[in-house]
Amino acid sequence: MTLPIALDAMGGDFAPGEIIAGAKRAVDELGLSVILVGVPELIGDPHGLEVFACSEVIAMDDDPAGSVRRKKDSSLVRAAELVRDGKASAMVSAGNTGATMASALLRMGRLPGVVRPCIATPIPNPGRTPSVLVDAGANSECTAEMLVQFAQMGSVFVQAHYGVETPTIGLLSIGEESSKGTSLVKETHALLAELGSLKFHGNVEGRDLIPSPVDVVVTDGFTGNVALKTLEGALKFFFSTVLGVIGTNDETKAAGNVLYEYLLPIVGKLNPENQGGAMLLGLNGICVISHGSSNATAIMNALRVAAEMDKAGVVEKLRLAIRPDQS
Amino acid sequence: MTLPIALDAMGGDFAPGEIIAGAKRAVDELGLSVILVGVPELIGDPHGLEVFACSEVIAMDDDPAGSVRRKKDSSLVRAAELVRDGKASAMVSAGNTGATMASALLRMGRLPGVVRPCIATPIPNPGRTPSVLVDAGANSECTAEMLVQFAQMGSVFVQAHYGVETPTIGLLSIGEESSKGTSLVKETHALLAELGSLKFHGNVEGRDLIPSPVDVVVTDGFTGNVALKTLEGALKFFFSTVLGVIGTNDETKAAGNVLYEYLLPIVGKLNPENQGGAMLLGLNGICVISHGSSNATAIMNALRVAAEMDKAGVVEKLRLAIRPDQS
Repeated sequence: MTLPIALDAMGGDFAPGEIIAGAKRAVDELGLSVILVGVPELIGDPHGLEVFACSEVIAMDDDPAGSVRRKKDSSLVRAAELVRDGKASAMVSAGNTGATMASALLRMGRLPGVVRPCIATPIPNPGRTPSVLVDAGANSECTAEMLVQFAQMGSVFVQAHYGVETPTIGLLSIGEESSKGTSLVKETHALLAELGSLKFHGNVEGRDLIPSPVDVVVTDGFTGNVALKTLEGALKFFFSTVLGVIGTNDETKAAGNVLYEYLLPIVGKLNPENQGGAMLLGLNGICVISHGSSNATAIMNALRVAAEMDKAGVVEKLRLAIRPDQS
Repeated sequence: MTLPIALDAMGGDFAPGEIIAGAKRAVDELGLSVILVGVPELIGDPHGLEVFACSEVIAMDDDPAGSVRRKKDSSLVRAAELVRDGKASAMVSAGNTGATMASALLRMGRLPGVVRPCIATPIPNPGRTPSVLVDAGANSECTAEMLVQFAQMGSVFVQAHYGVETPTIGLLSIGEESSKGTSLVKETHALLAELGSLKFHGNVEGRDLIPSPVDVVVTDGFTGNVALKTLEGALKFFFSTVLGVIGTNDETKAAGNVLYEYLLPIVGKLNPENQGGAMLLGLNGICVISHGSSNATAIMNALRVAAEMDKAGVVEKLRLAIRPDQS
């Protein structure tokens, strides 16, 4: 029997409507098993889905650590407990990212030997498997040991999830030479170069994020988050610029109609809502974080990714890769 | 009498051909005065431009500090000396960025009170003046005091160069709240919020780089360089994607021809070669760093920016803004 995925019905800018709609589609179209975690009066009609009732909601702007401590009967905390207690295979939330991380960390706990869990965010590479950015925002301040673990966890994830046999690892810096970057980057470079178990490509730069020459891009959570949002902002800016040009007059609109057929599938691949969200790696359980602005499609994709991670045994593979004696 | 701008004729991927061609255009089209600094045998025909002869060249991949120390008769070092000695109004180079910074810093020196000079890179904002990213790569590791000075210098530059009366300052972080980011960012946030002399907008994120809600984006040189290259890479990727789509077949090519008329002026504005390069702020003189891949147009624009900075009295305005008693 497959365990259901615990979905935070209260989290996200369009909760609960789009969240429930996404869950319904995941059940109907993908055959997944989903349990909605939320306040029944706020959920309203669950459209035939199972509901795990709770009484509290952590708001998008609540203080992460404090709210998880105070709101013990919140949908986020309860979803994490369902995973901890073996009643759900994974949790998914489009809610307060910090509180999602805190709930998952506090309730599921870390895998033995993991210093700090990290956020892995896939960045599409047209024509091949995505590259995965670790850490995309969980840890603003990192040590070299943490970055090496992020590299290991990212590598295991890419192997298990995308079937890449020997993922290549790039260290995000400001020049290809090992002498470039902060002291943290230089120290990490030396450690990764020594480590025989990973295929270290060397330093990569911001311009190597899309398309990327490597499967895993390693950086601290501050730089990773800035780079990811810069990338999203730039693509959004350029796309809206092209749309603006197409809307100029009847002639440009007609030209746009010709190009849309070819352009839209590419834009679709780049759209974060089709990526399935970001994964927390290093926990004793699966946690997928969807964009705050998630619509039903984004939620369905996040549920799909959670199910795929479960099926691929990502957590067990991470457990084997990060042995306690390395901590 | 206007002093000439000292142009490193040896620096850049397309030196000396494109460098000299750019200088010639700056003289003919913009009426600027330019002196080529380089090895006469390598320069060949100077096309009527004045040449300051030297015997050495710092290569693109030379160690910056070491090469500046060893190659005392190099074009980069001599160009910086011409500014120091009051024989040139500014220096411009598309060569080794680190060596350009080192030459300028060692020969011109810092303005009194400046802890560390920074690189200011304009990022275009369609429809209004560019925002300026400081530090875009000079200092990988920074203190909060340095970041506050970058904000001050960026503000003075935007005021003098773009005529923005009260430039707004954004601090690059991973969330708008003052509690977000590294300890460096939080400390800098507190200092900027206290400082009455600057118009502090608060934190901005990677997605606020283009278009930007602020005139100056402040960050450490590591994060700034990663963000800038991410932006450049994303725009290049998206533009080449659109070009690929347009090249699909005759129908899409015809559609592309309709759109080019409107798209190309925008792309032109985004193109780094039209930006005029990056400026070193905080030195006792003007130094403009052009892209390594600069063609004649890029060099002409870098010379134009150097002349504008001279005319606007940016160095004197920086000197007044950064008083020694603040150091």
